[in-house]
Amino acid sequence: MNTLGNIFTVTSFGESHGSYVGCVIDGCPAGLKLNIEAIQEQVDRRKTNQSFYTTSRNETDEIEILSGVFENTTSGAPICIVIKNKDAKSKDYDSLRNLYRPNHADFTNEMKYGIRDYLGGGRSSIRVTAPLVAAGEIANQLLQKETKLQTRAFVSQIGELTLSNPYDLTSLNLDSVDESEVRCPDVDLSNKILELLKQVKEEGDTLGGVITCLIQHVPVGLGEPIFGKLQAELGKAMLSINTVKGFEYGYGFASASMKGSEYNDAFMLEKDVIKTSTNRSGGIQGGISNGMDIYFNVAFKPISSIQQKQQSINKQNEIIEFSIDGRHDVCAVPRAVPIVEAYTHIVLADAFLQNKISRL
Amino acid sequence: MNTLGNIFTVTSFGESHGSYVGCVIDGCPAGLKLNIEAIQEQVDRRKTNQSFYTTSRNETDEIEILSGVFENTTSGAPICIVIKNKDAKSKDYDSLRNLYRPNHADFTNEMKYGIRDYLGGGRSSIRVTAPLVAAGEIANQLLQKETKLQTRAFVSQIGELTLSNPYDLTSLNLDSVDESEVRCPDVDLSNKILELLKQVKEEGDTLGGVITCLIQHVPVGLGEPIFGKLQAELGKAMLSINTVKGFEYGYGFASASMKGSEYNDAFMLEKDVIKTSTNRSGGIQGGISNGMDIYFNVAFKPISSIQQKQQSINKQNEIIEFSIDGRHDVCAVPRAVPIVEAYTHIVLADAFLQNKISRL
Amino acid sequence: MNTLGNIFTVTSFGESHGSYVGCVIDGCPAGLKLNIEAIQEQVDRRKTNQSFYTTSRNETDEIEILSGVFENTTSGAPICIVIKNKDAKSKDYDSLRNLYRPNHADFTNEMKYGIRDYLGGGRSSIRVTAPLVAAGEIANQLLQKETKLQTRAFVSQIGELTLSNPYDLTSLNLDSVDESEVRCPDVDLSNKILELLKQVKEEGDTLGGVITCLIQHVPVGLGEPIFGKLQAELGKAMLSINTVKGFEYGYGFASASMKGSEYNDAFMLEKDVIKTSTNRSGGIQGGISNGMDIYFNVAFKPISSIQQKQQSINKQNEIIEFSIDGRHDVCAVPRAVPIVEAYTHIVLADAFLQNKISRL
Amino acid sequence: MNTLGNIFTVTSFGESHGSYVGCVIDGCPAGLKLNIEAIQEQVDRRKTNQSFYTTSRNETDEIEILSGVFENTTSGAPICIVIKNKDAKSKDYDSLRNLYRPNHADFTNEMKYGIRDYLGGGRSSIRVTAPLVAAGEIANQLLQKETKLQTRAFVSQIGELTLSNPYDLTSLNLDSVDESEVRCPDVDLSNKILELLKQVKEEGDTLGGVITCLIQHVPVGLGEPIFGKLQAELGKAMLSINTVKGFEYGYGFASASMKGSEYNDAFMLEKDVIKTSTNRSGGIQGGISNGMDIYFNVAFKPISSIQQKQQSINKQNEIIEFSIDGRHDVCAVPRAVPIVEAYTHIVLADAFLQNKISRL
Repeated sequence: MNTLGNIFTVTSFGESHGSYVGCVIDGCPAGLKLNIEAIQEQVDRRKTNQSFYTTSRNETDEIEILSGVFENTTSGAPICIVIKNKDAKSKDYDSLRNLYRPNHADFTNEMKYGIRDYLGGGRSSIRVTAPLVAAGEIANQLLQKETKLQTRAFVSQIGELTLSNPYDLTSLNLDSVDESEVRCPDVDLSNKILELLKQVKEEGDTLGGVITCLIQHVPVGLGEPIFGKLQAELGKAMLSINTVKGFEYGYGFASASMKGSEYNDAFMLEKDVIKTSTNRSGGIQGGISNGMDIYFNVAFKPISSIQQKQQSINKQNEIIEFSIDGRHDVCAVPRAVPIVEAYTHIVLADAFLQNKISRL
Repeated sequence: MNTLGNIFTVTSFGESHGSYVGCVIDGCPAGLKLNIEAIQEQVDRRKTNQSFYTTSRNETDEIEILSGVFENTTSGAPICIVIKNKDAKSKDYDSLRNLYRPNHADFTNEMKYGIRDYLGGGRSSIRVTAPLVAAGEIANQLLQKETKLQTRAFVSQIGELTLSNPYDLTSLNLDSVDESEVRCPDVDLSNKILELLKQVKEEGDTLGGVITCLIQHVPVGLGEPIFGKLQAELGKAMLSINTVKGFEYGYGFASASMKGSEYNDAFMLEKDVIKTSTNRSGGIQGGISNGMDIYFNVAFKPISSIQQKQQSINKQNEIIEFSIDGRHDVCAVPRAVPIVEAYTHIVLADAFLQNKISRL
Repeated sequence: MNTLGNIFTVTSFGESHGSYVGCVIDGCPAGLKLNIEAIQEQVDRRKTNQSFYTTSRNETDEIEILSGVFENTTSGAPICIVIKNKDAKSKDYDSLRNLYRPNHADFTNEMKYGIRDYLGGGRSSIRVTAPLVAAGEIANQLLQKETKLQTRAFVSQIGELTLSNPYDLTSLNLDSVDESEVRCPDVDLSNKILELLKQVKEEGDTLGGVITCLIQHVPVGLGEPIFGKLQAELGKAMLSINTVKGFEYGYGFASASMKGSEYNDAFMLEKDVIKTSTNRSGGIQGGISNGMDIYFNVAFKPISSIQQKQQSINKQNEIIEFSIDGRHDVCAVPRAVPIVEAYTHIVLADAFLQNKISRL
Repeated sequence: MNTLGNIFTVTSFGESHGSYVGCVIDGCPAGLKLNIEAIQEQVDRRKTNQSFYTTSRNETDEIEILSGVFENTTSGAPICIVIKNKDAKSKDYDSLRNLYRPNHADFTNEMKYGIRDYLGGGRSSIRVTAPLVAAGEIANQLLQKETKLQTRAFVSQIGELTLSNPYDLTSLNLDSVDESEVRCPDVDLSNKILELLKQVKEEGDTLGGVITCLIQHVPVGLGEPIFGKLQAELGKAMLSINTVKGFEYGYGFASASMKGSEYNDAFMLEKDVIKTSTNRSGGIQGGISNGMDIYFNVAFKPISSIQQKQQSINKQNEIIEFSIDGRHDVCAVPRAVPIVEAYTHIVLADAFLQNKISRL
């Protein structure tokens, strides 16, 4: 229940308060030369304390690979990656240990397990994704070696500020995503978002947003026709990210109001290769990639830890008024960009290996 | 790769042209007294030829239970359900056998498997969901026996016609969904949709739409914290339905433009039971049900088989102009309502059994 | 829980009394041209009423392939195979419906599931293996297409009659196994066994035995180092056959009394190929095939349905004296030969596909 | 492929030369109060350098629990256990890095993965079982809490020295197994084995043996009827231990030469509880535990690292004469006793949880 993938699998473990967070990758083929620095770089993209609007907690997030890699090359054995928790100030949480924070997992975890790991959200902390970003980058390096596939995610909406044309992705300079402090490749929009975040931070409030992900040069044939549809696996992965409330691919919810004659993507030939003249399908037909670009949107709700005063209930069924200190993210969406990419890579590497044995 | 669920699992088999479509349920506990008629009724709700806007093909869809049920009670053994394909007129498809129909799975299936089952879409036909609806009703009967949970899905949008207030679900009379010819409980909207469908049928076109699903009286504790989040399993299941392009739960994409202070659901006491005063979360927090109503939207693109002339490419890379005969659905969304409910039940039954062994 | 295999998976369903027994194969690659007759032949090798010592029940065991095969070629979709139960005379079992027959699964099934499918042993009948033999032959045809691997199982012991040299398999004419009425390739031993079976049949008794299986021309690299060891998967499969009590491979239990210096297989070169000069390991080292012959023994207890009077307990805790009619097998071991081969093929096809993605 | 179990799962990672060996337990219910000392004690029972006949390498094998345990109680989250490798003297192995040691996994691993982790056998070292013994003890503590089940394994044979009556287990004092330096509860046999081991050590040779395992007070109903038979899961687990060549339960291979009338276990009443008067079945009928004692034998070949001169082939296809230094075990069977128990507990805990949801 803590595993993503069927063949290339990633099993998560660890809590934010414990000694380590980590994961085990099983099913990564032997013989993949790893770029360890690139793995660390991806993990660092998710780090705290990168901007005024992110939490000021300091997490160094240094990865250690405990197994499965020999002389920098995957050996075929499971790869265990861990990251030490350094800033686990458990006393910070003492006042919250009996409180059910609104929209947090405190209440549901305690009801389900009869025990609550009250330190920093425990298992439900976004911190558990840090080693999964490392796993995603290993998946990416596998895909880079075997295909020309390229994945780029970016912020396309924060609050009510959004890209003017959500389907015109090729006009964006996606190589410069990280040059924007909010990972939005549209410079104007990026600046407006920064303004908005400053204002919302002052209000002690938080904001949601949308990440768009574009995958190009996808091999034809990834995904399975019924329950392993590529969009279903991608959707599942995205909905596994904390605070995600929605997933759509291709024309998504917009397609619901369209007619077939407006929506259908006609097949055509381009230099003897079969393509579609439009790509409202988002690169997947019948659950299987057709070689066109895959693109999807992921909706994030605003994070729950606001500085403003809130009321809640505690374990003793008492009504408690409280406010959460100012160390939290105003908006976690930009930090989620590498998570979206990582989970995408895990899904695609899994589908890629699966597809290798789908026909003689 | 053809299986939904982890403990209560449903494995699909069969193609639209073959002798049977079917599925195998494994992990259904012994001792569940089945209402076989109710299972058949659910399957019949998905049938063809129910209205002017659905395909005129006649499928009787009579279920046969081959195993796992003894004297109408589940025995703990796998339950195999099959439905005979009676209207498999393969000659209908002869003209299409080499054509890649736009937005169909013809092209991707042939590229992936090197073989195309050209008869009626084969494995990619929506017909393979018929036995899965039966499996979903068995899951539902398990949930009915063990919980008070109730699931009701309905059409909330067709084309551009949509419910005026998408979050005011309790004002709708959901017990009367099937009284509407388009499974929309808002009488006015239902009538408008019927008008629209008539007009679009005349144009030889098709329409997409949205199904909303409401689950009430959900036990607290369903779902897992990381990769088995309840929303991720529901999303995966919904995105496994043909033509689905998006999934959102709670406030979904709308939450992306909200502030934390607007979004958070405050905990409160109602007769000594902890509830939330609002329910923008949609009944799931941290991946686990909190006992409030779960609700989600599923976006369907218009179906691809339009009667209007279209161009495409065939196997020989020739450009072909063609049109598809008039037997197809104008809009498949109303027929998908029992599919949405069935997949929901499978996910919930699975989560329910999983949760039973999550603590001592 | 009713599935064998990880990638090439076979899910069993059906009971001896029901309308059908069957299975679903998932993960068989597309593009495998099937020899359907050869599949039926393997199933027929397992049939009843082949000799004086087998049950006189008549089962025609005709396979029907419901899905996954298009124009005799696998399409990549799940393959469902069913066999109709024709001789399900349920009245035969009326007298036994409350009795716990010794060494049968009556008692344990009823205790576990709270329900007993008393007709012919239901799920625990060896009859459920018939479609699995068909699945095994499909696995075999996959292996034949992709490798030179050859599997032959045979009876090496019935009662106390046993091969004089259990490790000298190459001196046996394994192509003639089916010429022996008891599937024992040693003509003398075969005749002695037939004599013994006649005598035991007259006594109203039954006999156990051993099946030896030899796999030649195995590709190097099948199996995984820790929990997917090839011997562990083979052992699990064999111990899944009704009445099997033991599994050993290579020198098996005999190796327990040996010294390392006596046991070790030295590596050597044979025409530039690395082989071992002896093969006490049985073709597997560290869980992975080394290219030498794999051989193993499977021990079968005598079947429980003896004609002699026995005492037992019924559901009402009464002591009952009873005897079972004469339609049962005196010895089921020869009929189990195709089952051993089939399960072996399923394990090997699974390991073969797994191995294809174990390295770049 | 590195995971044991279906619900209570244990995933192994790590190599003998790396920084850590470890495992992740997923599916352990929340609320289990752990006795951490008892876990360490079990791990210590497997340690090196316990006697003259075991390797003189010093491994301290101190377990660290990285996750899933909060205030000594399981939280429902995955439990990651690691053990640091302290005595990884890689230079010891330099001379062997290109050699294929007889009966080791060097050759098969290199052929399969194209890479050889030559340091101390890497992934194939028995050292990777150390954290699995810890996982087994957690499984045991779960079983202790929920059932009265008790597992005791012991050495019943080393070389040709064996228990006089292998089926008379109750006459043995199994509480004193660890008082014997070779974990054999028969004092005479234990002394003879020690003599034999001294002599074999002087010869620079090694010895195989048999471990017998007895499980008492087993709940009725563990195991599944077809592919999840309890004996199949136990057999698979045992055959996953390095150097194991055979598994038999109940009367095992001896039952092959018996008649049904000699073998059948009659049901009888003992204080209104249904038991069997004999127990040749070994406590499992139809794949499901019947409440009687489960017992099985596991055959171990002699370990391959003998001090005597041997010949082999290296990577360059050269014939090499070599001898292995004296630090290796003369006999690893006594050290495997806690491994047999641990794997048994994992299988039983898994079957126990599975069984909890097998009926309403």
